[in-house]
Amino acid sequence: MTSSVSTEPGTAELYHRVQQFYARQMQLLDDGAVAEWAATFTADGSFAANARPEPVVGRAAIEAGALAAARQLASEGIVRRHWLGMLSVEQLPGGRVRARCYALVISTPKGGQAGVHVSTVCEDVLVPDGGSFAVQERRVTRDDLS
Amino acid sequence: MTSSVSTEPGTAELYHRVQQFYARQMQLLDDGAVAEWAATFTADGSFAANARPEPVVGRAAIEAGALAAARQLASEGIVRRHWLGMLSVEQLPGGRVRARCYALVISTPKGGQAGVHVSTVCEDVLVPDGGSFAVQERRVTRDDLS
Amino acid sequence: MTSSVSTEPGTAELYHRVQQFYARQMQLLDDGAVAEWAATFTADGSFAANARPEPVVGRAAIEAGALAAARQLASEGIVRRHWLGMLSVEQLPGGRVRARCYALVISTPKGGQAGVHVSTVCEDVLVPDGGSFAVQERRVTRDDLS
Repeated sequence: MTSSVSTEPGTAELYHRVQQFYARQMQLLDDGAVAEWAATFTADGSFAANARPEPVVGRAAIEAGALAAARQLASEGIVRRHWLGMLSVEQLPGGRVRARCYALVISTPKGGQAGVHVSTVCEDVLVPDGGSFAVQERRVTRDDLS
Repeated sequence: MTSSVSTEPGTAELYHRVQQFYARQMQLLDDGAVAEWAATFTADGSFAANARPEPVVGRAAIEAGALAAARQLASEGIVRRHWLGMLSVEQLPGGRVRARCYALVISTPKGGQAGVHVSTVCEDVLVPDGGSFAVQERRVTRDDLS
Repeated sequence: MTSSVSTEPGTAELYHRVQQFYARQMQLLDDGAVAEWAATFTADGSFAANARPEPVVGRAAIEAGALAAARQLASEGIVRRHWLGMLSVEQLPGGRVRARCYALVISTPKGGQAGVHVSTVCEDVLVPDGGSFAVQERRVTRDDLS
């Protein structure tokens, strides 16, 4: 019986490009480079989460929300690391990409014990942007919330 | 002195295909799509674990075991995420693949704190199946057990 | 506006080779194959960490330190797993590679609960070695320490 899990030939390059994009995107966020991280979203990009009643729409709003969060964490002496893994990628028309992955947030207080903060699933629509991508739509679903 | 870690040229495509297979396989399991996940094993596939005295043999038995586990977790309101990483891949004759990776299980109770459940090593023999793979042999070794 | 995250075309093969190198390197260390792990450093390689006042310099010293640590863990019945992820890779001249990734250490006592030990960032300069790489410089920065 044919497996229900299919892989599309010739997509190692795409898969690598998405992995590299996510690695640099999350390193920017976790290093506190919020403006540069926000620049990886399209100007009209949206960020929905089951932790919030409404999506955040537009790069400016996405940046403002992330900046407030980064300042709060810095004031509390907490370092966050966003781990993205178990990535599945689907090529859409026009160079767009649908990506689904697990996103695990690790939290470490200065002088304290590192641990898992939240476990989530991240679903993106990526569009071509220069030689890389930008996020047009992001949906993050936390496992602990309904 | 030559490093004892070798990489085989030209295997980026294989490595990507295995990573994508594992991502989709684990997403099926963690989403509760147990029949579809079981279909990623060969009909005569085996699943051995140091947590069990005997291997589970055959797709039907593998599916039944996973279904019972999925129902138990659902009744307890627990979401599991299987993270596979640190993958090393070796091409065997006939398109078969030996794969070894770390498998970390994250567990999140609804309304509760996500955390590490178990840390394991996963060793597979994969066979070609359609454009993808199926697991012929899986051995999962938990770090906490002898 | 062009995204600030760029990807270099044609580097899927390099990215894969580095991922496979790290997978095998960490599997050697975590399996207690310390001499083989140390052989993945150049003879004059260095290993700096914010957990130590001075870098460890030279393969012999790197091996000695890792052997002492491995023996201590074995005596305590603790299994460590080094997870490397969120990898970004940059090709340098002469086949050298700069790599930056997150390194999460999972710790499991025999008969006990697995959990996160430390969260770190790992920055390497890799040099070609046979068909693979060797680490010339490693810097590991723990998130909990200044």
